[in-house]
Amino acid sequence: MSFYDVLHRRRDTRGEFTGAPIPPEVLRRVLGAAHAAPSVGLSQPWDFILVRDEHTRRAFRDHVQAERSVFAAGLDPERAELFERIKVEGILESTLGVVVTYDPDRGSPAVLGRHAIADAGLYSVCLAIQNLWLAATAEGLGVGWVSFYREEVLRRLLGIPRPVRPVAWLCVGPVERLPDAPDLERHGWRNRLPLEEVLHQERYTRRPGR
Amino acid sequence: MSFYDVLHRRRDTRGEFTGAPIPPEVLRRVLGAAHAAPSVGLSQPWDFILVRDEHTRRAFRDHVQAERSVFAAGLDPERAELFERIKVEGILESTLGVVVTYDPDRGSPAVLGRHAIADAGLYSVCLAIQNLWLAATAEGLGVGWVSFYREEVLRRLLGIPRPVRPVAWLCVGPVERLPDAPDLERHGWRNRLPLEEVLHQERYTRRPGR
Repeated sequence: MSFYDVLHRRRDTRGEFTGAPIPPEVLRRVLGAAHAAPSVGLSQPWDFILVRDEHTRRAFRDHVQAERSVFAAGLDPERAELFERIKVEGILESTLGVVVTYDPDRGSPAVLGRHAIADAGLYSVCLAIQNLWLAATAEGLGVGWVSFYREEVLRRLLGIPRPVRPVAWLCVGPVERLPDAPDLERHGWRNRLPLEEVLHQERYTRRPGR
Repeated sequence: MSFYDVLHRRRDTRGEFTGAPIPPEVLRRVLGAAHAAPSVGLSQPWDFILVRDEHTRRAFRDHVQAERSVFAAGLDPERAELFERIKVEGILESTLGVVVTYDPDRGSPAVLGRHAIADAGLYSVCLAIQNLWLAATAEGLGVGWVSFYREEVLRRLLGIPRPVRPVAWLCVGPVERLPDAPDLERHGWRNRLPLEEVLHQERYTRRPGR
């Protein structure tokens, strides 16, 4: 696949995982892609926890289901009904979970480029996640980012010490197929915006309110 | 370039910009790549402000130089001397600045997947930035992320209304070449870590303290 093919084929996958194994060299290329991301002051403040254990995954899935209900309870009846039909995670069906964390102490105290923007290290971790996601797509794997969880629960579950912060649980593995359109668009939850709506010249000129 | 070539050739560029124009269709592909990023609840909470104006860029560059001095003042003499030799931005030399912002109101109030993690929208914006960075690399352009600034200063300079938050000033444009190694590594500021140091199995097992 060409670079742009990979970029535009990438999807958030939830219902398509087969659970088949990932060849070790493929997993290494995908993790190596994440680790090749740019980072503020070359701090590389990320860690990757590979979770295959069934008990851990079930405990996390149970927590995510509870948080899903919390979100659903805040919706009006029409949106709640729509949300009911949307699958938000493939924690058990995927081959493994890759939990990505942020360590603010990595490279401290003088992280070049972080003195004025405290979140810059957190931003770096997200760049690594997108590298991982795209590399997985290039390898024919699916990735689903689960964000229906409380950080403190995931921290306790995996023994993540403070001040390290969990940023994502990524479900990773072979998929039957990658969907053509985002699930949320397919279900009518929300549409993709035209590029023009998010472009500004010289100054921030308006708020589309979308 | 193959996908992995793009991924591993990507560099943070500061001193290599030529200032040559970017063909409109190339810029559109690069911004389209950013806009194709995944986002929590398909909120697409990013905006892109294209800054070419000389006065705006000079004002921002002056502010960045002042913040550079703030950072330098906190270093011990040896590190300060090393830092002195490192160029941290190409604001005036690049073809344009792309300022990327985060709008927490986009898709509110019920952003699917954000109720438990307030920062999830901010994470989405970073994924868009990495897409932009990689697409620019595929197009032979350089990108340099400037983070020596106070958000409030950039907000005022570009008329960014609250609660929209500036996340990055990216210097973008054709470059003489992409460096083989990160500038900070080349200057001996900090080295890339082996992948093994950031990998954990099942649980977070240690803190490397690097």
